[in-house]
Amino acid sequence: MIEMRSDTFTLPTAAMITAMASAELGDDVYGEDPTVRRLEEEAAALVGKESACLMPSGTMANLCALLAQAPRGTKAVVGNESDIYLYEAGGAAVCGGVVYAPVATRPNGELALADLDAEFPDEPEDPQFALPAVVCVENTHNRCGGRVLAKDYLDELRHFADARRVALHLDGARLFNAAVASGRSAADIAAVADTVQFCLSKGLGAPVGSILAGSHDVLVRARRLRKMLGGGMRQAGVLAAAGRLALTTMTDRLAEDHEHARRLAEGLADIPGVLIGLETVETNIVLFRIAPERMGWQRFVDEVGEQGLAVAGFGHDRVRAVTHHGIGAAEVDRAIGVVARVLAR
Amino acid sequence: MIEMRSDTFTLPTAAMITAMASAELGDDVYGEDPTVRRLEEEAAALVGKESACLMPSGTMANLCALLAQAPRGTKAVVGNESDIYLYEAGGAAVCGGVVYAPVATRPNGELALADLDAEFPDEPEDPQFALPAVVCVENTHNRCGGRVLAKDYLDELRHFADARRVALHLDGARLFNAAVASGRSAADIAAVADTVQFCLSKGLGAPVGSILAGSHDVLVRARRLRKMLGGGMRQAGVLAAAGRLALTTMTDRLAEDHEHARRLAEGLADIPGVLIGLETVETNIVLFRIAPERMGWQRFVDEVGEQGLAVAGFGHDRVRAVTHHGIGAAEVDRAIGVVARVLAR
Amino acid sequence: MIEMRSDTFTLPTAAMITAMASAELGDDVYGEDPTVRRLEEEAAALVGKESACLMPSGTMANLCALLAQAPRGTKAVVGNESDIYLYEAGGAAVCGGVVYAPVATRPNGELALADLDAEFPDEPEDPQFALPAVVCVENTHNRCGGRVLAKDYLDELRHFADARRVALHLDGARLFNAAVASGRSAADIAAVADTVQFCLSKGLGAPVGSILAGSHDVLVRARRLRKMLGGGMRQAGVLAAAGRLALTTMTDRLAEDHEHARRLAEGLADIPGVLIGLETVETNIVLFRIAPERMGWQRFVDEVGEQGLAVAGFGHDRVRAVTHHGIGAAEVDRAIGVVARVLAR
Amino acid sequence: MIEMRSDTFTLPTAAMITAMASAELGDDVYGEDPTVRRLEEEAAALVGKESACLMPSGTMANLCALLAQAPRGTKAVVGNESDIYLYEAGGAAVCGGVVYAPVATRPNGELALADLDAEFPDEPEDPQFALPAVVCVENTHNRCGGRVLAKDYLDELRHFADARRVALHLDGARLFNAAVASGRSAADIAAVADTVQFCLSKGLGAPVGSILAGSHDVLVRARRLRKMLGGGMRQAGVLAAAGRLALTTMTDRLAEDHEHARRLAEGLADIPGVLIGLETVETNIVLFRIAPERMGWQRFVDEVGEQGLAVAGFGHDRVRAVTHHGIGAAEVDRAIGVVARVLAR
Repeated sequence: MIEMRSDTFTLPTAAMITAMASAELGDDVYGEDPTVRRLEEEAAALVGKESACLMPSGTMANLCALLAQAPRGTKAVVGNESDIYLYEAGGAAVCGGVVYAPVATRPNGELALADLDAEFPDEPEDPQFALPAVVCVENTHNRCGGRVLAKDYLDELRHFADARRVALHLDGARLFNAAVASGRSAADIAAVADTVQFCLSKGLGAPVGSILAGSHDVLVRARRLRKMLGGGMRQAGVLAAAGRLALTTMTDRLAEDHEHARRLAEGLADIPGVLIGLETVETNIVLFRIAPERMGWQRFVDEVGEQGLAVAGFGHDRVRAVTHHGIGAAEVDRAIGVVARVLAR
Repeated sequence: MIEMRSDTFTLPTAAMITAMASAELGDDVYGEDPTVRRLEEEAAALVGKESACLMPSGTMANLCALLAQAPRGTKAVVGNESDIYLYEAGGAAVCGGVVYAPVATRPNGELALADLDAEFPDEPEDPQFALPAVVCVENTHNRCGGRVLAKDYLDELRHFADARRVALHLDGARLFNAAVASGRSAADIAAVADTVQFCLSKGLGAPVGSILAGSHDVLVRARRLRKMLGGGMRQAGVLAAAGRLALTTMTDRLAEDHEHARRLAEGLADIPGVLIGLETVETNIVLFRIAPERMGWQRFVDEVGEQGLAVAGFGHDRVRAVTHHGIGAAEVDRAIGVVARVLAR
Repeated sequence: MIEMRSDTFTLPTAAMITAMASAELGDDVYGEDPTVRRLEEEAAALVGKESACLMPSGTMANLCALLAQAPRGTKAVVGNESDIYLYEAGGAAVCGGVVYAPVATRPNGELALADLDAEFPDEPEDPQFALPAVVCVENTHNRCGGRVLAKDYLDELRHFADARRVALHLDGARLFNAAVASGRSAADIAAVADTVQFCLSKGLGAPVGSILAGSHDVLVRARRLRKMLGGGMRQAGVLAAAGRLALTTMTDRLAEDHEHARRLAEGLADIPGVLIGLETVETNIVLFRIAPERMGWQRFVDEVGEQGLAVAGFGHDRVRAVTHHGIGAAEVDRAIGVVARVLAR
Repeated sequence: MIEMRSDTFTLPTAAMITAMASAELGDDVYGEDPTVRRLEEEAAALVGKESACLMPSGTMANLCALLAQAPRGTKAVVGNESDIYLYEAGGAAVCGGVVYAPVATRPNGELALADLDAEFPDEPEDPQFALPAVVCVENTHNRCGGRVLAKDYLDELRHFADARRVALHLDGARLFNAAVASGRSAADIAAVADTVQFCLSKGLGAPVGSILAGSHDVLVRARRLRKMLGGGMRQAGVLAAAGRLALTTMTDRLAEDHEHARRLAEGLADIPGVLIGLETVETNIVLFRIAPERMGWQRFVDEVGEQGLAVAGFGHDRVRAVTHHGIGAAEVDRAIGVVARVLAR
């Protein structure tokens, strides 16, 4: 099976397995796991923040970022197509009494500043209004097909957050894809944000874990929240050992995933019945549609699945295929072949 | 001062004052205030529901309706221009861990069924999704200018709620305006909803209070919630006495308010520099804009204020004027004159 | 019926009714009800605080005090016999994510400082601990039989709160009973607290309403919370008019209620089968037990009820009788007679 | 260093490391990690429940158990010395609007049924009361020194829960210690509970993870909650592989830890200045005090630490020493020697 449903299916590398098996361990709930500590220091440095914290998932990292920066009764302004709003079960409302305020997402993953601005009431002292405390953006943007946010946009966003005195959280689940695609460092991209989250799993291949990074003060609050939510893990060094290798050995190679995604997209574009915007494929995610007169998306997903290609329906009648370190050029070419065959019937 | 900022400024009638002064009272926290009991029975009957409960405000009535029908972690699907979403401080997220899911509002106050439908995930068993538990509509719709929801739309909404197995809450803060404007009874309109809220204040003129009505079971839960929120009031019969007269003496006369609103709208339409869609004035709310080359809305509001006419900015560069039992034809004509003078300068 | 179940059954005086009928009104949600404003200013002055806010109930006043001073995830240290912990439906946990930390209540209503101290973890930076943010005491203490907290104790409590850097909230539902009984002013008693709540209903006789008072900053937050909870009321001046008279005409007369309570207690003490500690009757609440070999408390309550005396079971096999402005010496004597007759059978 | 602060410091065995390195993996967020699935099936069978779920920590397992069984606004009745109440940061109040209702803990870890009963109000329909939804007990009981709950008590508790129609949650972080000490199976002990949590870490030695088990329906809800809290982990099979061995190879050997604890306790009892109740040492936890005239507990902990023995202060002036698979008889004897030397000075 060619697994292209998500880069979350990545398996750890052999080196990661070896590192996990020989990791120096301690009880991280007591702050005594040396491997976790090293990972957290390295991760903080890599994204240019004072402090970082290992989390069991990106969902918890995002949740802690929101709760640490949005008091009860404030608004988290989020994209209406963001992972935080759509796929994280409303955690900030449930656990924090935070109001999600979704605004429209542009095709390139941006949230228009005017739309963000409209979330701030003219009369903030009027008690009928919940007030924004944090703005969240996603980079790369999953539902927009792995789009990379432009540097200029991020700079404008920082100015906006400063002017409005709100925190800026960057959901960088695929931050290193954005870095590689834009030729900038992760720290450079994350510099605009008060807090940044990125996944050690997904393209970086570690089995479990995400990093939340930011200022010392915010991270102290985030660690408290992690404990409350149940994300404090004992000998978490077994996971951190893989995570350290994810940061040192797996980021640069994301360029290959991007090449493979482009190769896939171009191959699909040549197949009658595939509708795809090549210019939108910037990283490792390929979104496309099947001409409805040919086939419904669900049937398409099922039929290529029977032929050994796993892709996923992705809303708005779209199909998503994602490249990662388990997918080489050969798998891409086979995938193109499967799609061609299925649509040629 | 001609007070047209809102119908919330209505003062109780002389009859209400007399009734309040002579009301039979008891401790309603013990369920022993006879005047409250009578009001609740009469209100339930009037909107065709099994049970009703007096609340200190429409905000609390809406909040109890949401919390009684939306468990922690579910979604309340609301209009993005609704009072519940914009003006009630996010109470359901804070007090209930409920996720507000705002959908686009049509100019006539409707929420498109397709948009509501899109809030239901394809795979409800997938734990990453918060699931809708309640859908809320507003009738008449304040931010749309007092628009009345059509019977056909409400019927479709009921079918939708049944098909999707969610509760339907009607924020009928101005329910009786909708009833009078559509020539239907309040019970007929409310019949589609599982719960309905309407205000005894606003156009009906009582000083304080709103009613939440619905099935016996939901109202038992709502009463528990009212107590927790602090809405249990002792000798609330003083308020209920006015509320009873609101129901018997103040609903039919809303037709006058609607006539006055139309008179106002038509008068304004004749004034150069006023931008208004006459066809949208269905009840007691008149929304209009000032041609921007003439004057900004804030300056307009200030200048007519200095001339004795109180109106309110209302977002999207709009101005709102509302008629009510303190506004007669003479006040309307004076208001038109003030606007004409200010814009003629 | 001699109504001694609670002083919440008090009816407004004739002067209050008159004041309500002639009150100058406005929309208090806009901050424009002059009678409410006057009440709030007078109430703040009376308890020596910068600011005050009218609430629909003591429950909401307490809830706003807790939420305004206890961030999400902190502890509110409360008495295990306090009204806040037992009778307010857990609102601070539900609406605020606040952990109630109940500590033992002494018979005189005090919470031992050592017990309060034990709620503070030795290692506050350890994320497994919720940290106290506010301590609440009740004066007079309802479940302890209307006991008055001693000045020395309150002073120690203030020092404790300062040393521990937590807020101190005084649930003074019957604050003026404490003032009258101790010969101190309400402001003097409330001086130790950051926030104080007292009821305009209960012994003061207004039909509806409580006051929350404190610093300007805390009250700004409390007003926001009141709106979110649904406690913003429109022409609330009808209630405030009675509340103003409660403050000026009803506080001193509480001394009569205390005399009547003592008369009642002494009368009951002479009746065989009544178990009562006379020294505990300090204000308007009389707690007693019935010798179990004579009669169960429930049967006692039922039987005196049939004879025209309404009293209430009150936990721990106790019966509560409360005096108020509807109860004169004649009613007290009749009540004693009823109890004597019932127990003489 | 002899590490006796906690059994949470246990390191994975060599066999666990090997199993982790060769585990068959998948994306558990999609439910496709075969090793996790096997662990969950085996764990459910071992405790005799329909379903089980791997959690990143016992804190999250307990939190999901509470939230899955206690709706917003209900009470979780817990021991005042329980881990859930003291060490889990108030998560159920924050994330679930649940009121913790702590009751006194007997020295043997039991909560008196009469005290539990007192948490149920006489008038459950009165809205001022939060109502119990779940009762939690802890077995073995950490703060009571690893005490094992008696079978008869657990049976009575089950009857109580049935009679009161509340759920019963067993915090069995050290469930297998209880099983080994009582000679009963884990399933037999857990049979009384609706849900049970136990840790794969602690005495069982896995690096990370806890299991929540219960009925299919409750576990479906718990899985939803796990995702919301951020406990959904990708290739969690690396952890589950160690967890499977924890269940098959590490439970029986807890008998050794208990023997070592007894050896330690008896050795300590012979040292002048050590105050210890030998009869309370039932499992792997040893609590003792230092005669205050000899030395304060903090100084004692520091001084033995300098001599190579790590123990922990544990509240109420107690010191805790815990045995586990990293502690043999030799370490126990050395520990006794360290204590004797320090107190002999």
